[in-house]
Amino acid sequence: MTVDQPPTPGSALWVLAHPRPDSLNGHLFRAGVEALSRDHDVATSDLYALGFDPVLGARDLGDLADRPGNLAALAGEAYARGQTSPDVRAEHEKIARAELLVLQFPLWWYGPPAILKGWLDRTFTDGFAYDTELDPAHGLPRRYGDGGLTRRKALVVVTVGEDERTLGPRGISGDLDSLLFPLTHGALWYVGIEALDLHVVHDADTLDAKGAAREVSRLQERLAGIDTERARPFRRLRDGDYPSALRALHPDLLPGRTDLGIHRVEAPGSLDVPA
Amino acid sequence: MTVDQPPTPGSALWVLAHPRPDSLNGHLFRAGVEALSRDHDVATSDLYALGFDPVLGARDLGDLADRPGNLAALAGEAYARGQTSPDVRAEHEKIARAELLVLQFPLWWYGPPAILKGWLDRTFTDGFAYDTELDPAHGLPRRYGDGGLTRRKALVVVTVGEDERTLGPRGISGDLDSLLFPLTHGALWYVGIEALDLHVVHDADTLDAKGAAREVSRLQERLAGIDTERARPFRRLRDGDYPSALRALHPDLLPGRTDLGIHRVEAPGSLDVPA
Repeated sequence: MTVDQPPTPGSALWVLAHPRPDSLNGHLFRAGVEALSRDHDVATSDLYALGFDPVLGARDLGDLADRPGNLAALAGEAYARGQTSPDVRAEHEKIARAELLVLQFPLWWYGPPAILKGWLDRTFTDGFAYDTELDPAHGLPRRYGDGGLTRRKALVVVTVGEDERTLGPRGISGDLDSLLFPLTHGALWYVGIEALDLHVVHDADTLDAKGAAREVSRLQERLAGIDTERARPFRRLRDGDYPSALRALHPDLLPGRTDLGIHRVEAPGSLDVPA
Repeated sequence: MTVDQPPTPGSALWVLAHPRPDSLNGHLFRAGVEALSRDHDVATSDLYALGFDPVLGARDLGDLADRPGNLAALAGEAYARGQTSPDVRAEHEKIARAELLVLQFPLWWYGPPAILKGWLDRTFTDGFAYDTELDPAHGLPRRYGDGGLTRRKALVVVTVGEDERTLGPRGISGDLDSLLFPLTHGALWYVGIEALDLHVVHDADTLDAKGAAREVSRLQERLAGIDTERARPFRRLRDGDYPSALRALHPDLLPGRTDLGIHRVEAPGSLDVPA
């Protein structure tokens, strides 16, 4: 099976993972959706408002709930049989249409809230978001820059309680690009989606009304130029940077480095060169 | 308020995040709990069996569900008022007793399943697991090596579909120590818990019965020596490696490096020195 979900030009999906409409996240969500709607067809998944259940389980396996085996593979077979749960099917339809995916959340324990983690666990289904078969063109799996959801960009909008230094390179909490690598690379890039630079709202817990208004404007301004923004790309599996017997970065590329930034394509003036 | 939850010597809590009792994870769980029970008092939280709800929300805020403000702070105030939800209170009691915390899960999208992520979101409560007040002894917050849950170790047991190279240093999926840094450092170490080296079961989807039996034995052997095992420690905030105005690692320490391994205490023969 060859997975390919072509997006609809000009379509976007905004996924929000925050329980409170009156929060900073709620304000950013409404202002962002409004701004993006000026020149995009925007669907939304307000996960708390939807009561989205993030727990992958028997319901995701259709008739195969009692069959032994890997859960992701079984969920993929249920998908192929048209037995995907209706709540996940509704998300699939929105994801399939969207050329731009916005994922907005507060950083909880240095990652997405459970409701968003489980949105990935349940909706990035085998056969929909990726393909376990090898591509006959090069004999490699269609993942990391390939898969079911190519030709898409994602904008991660994240509010954090800490400042730029604490979450910066060498910051005590780890740099945010590395902390969110499982999301931007492990999930999004795995299925073919290019993540744009993170949109980070620092010191989110202590912003006053003026600060919040400034953040709303900054998000609106970014969204106004989003269609022309380019991602700092990660390396594609099929481009040969990871020799296939090894699945590790070729020893001649960035020798000695083991930070997660090595998985970005090198470019002059890259932000990934250590300071 | 000074948080301090002294553990009960010899007590352990084993948290499992997998839906199927007949899975490899189910087998490892039962065998592991049995082995550990020989010389520990072992409580369990089989999150799927409990039907644990991982979605932090209004129920976690007691009477403060309508009060504006930061959710973690409000959940902390609800905790101080004795209004924590009964399911979370039951977890608090088990966590508070445990000297050893085992967190076992399959790696889904390069992180813990939503049900475990939300167990952290809901149970690592302000005032229980950490303290936002500054410690008068040094004027720093009690976090990263300090907090409510010191004098504890954690063992992370994780099954992965990939091999050691793909998830090793320079592996295409990122090295597992970095991928799980938000858990081992951002959550566990933040509240004072030392994570032992990861216990990783590679190629978990393709193990035959013999391979599974070998993994059960390997886990039992590790557990037999768990009380004398020492963690490769992360740096403590209060030890001065992060100058307080900056909250970034002192420029004289490991200059030029920006990988997440810089947050480990350096030691001769440290595994964190790049190859």
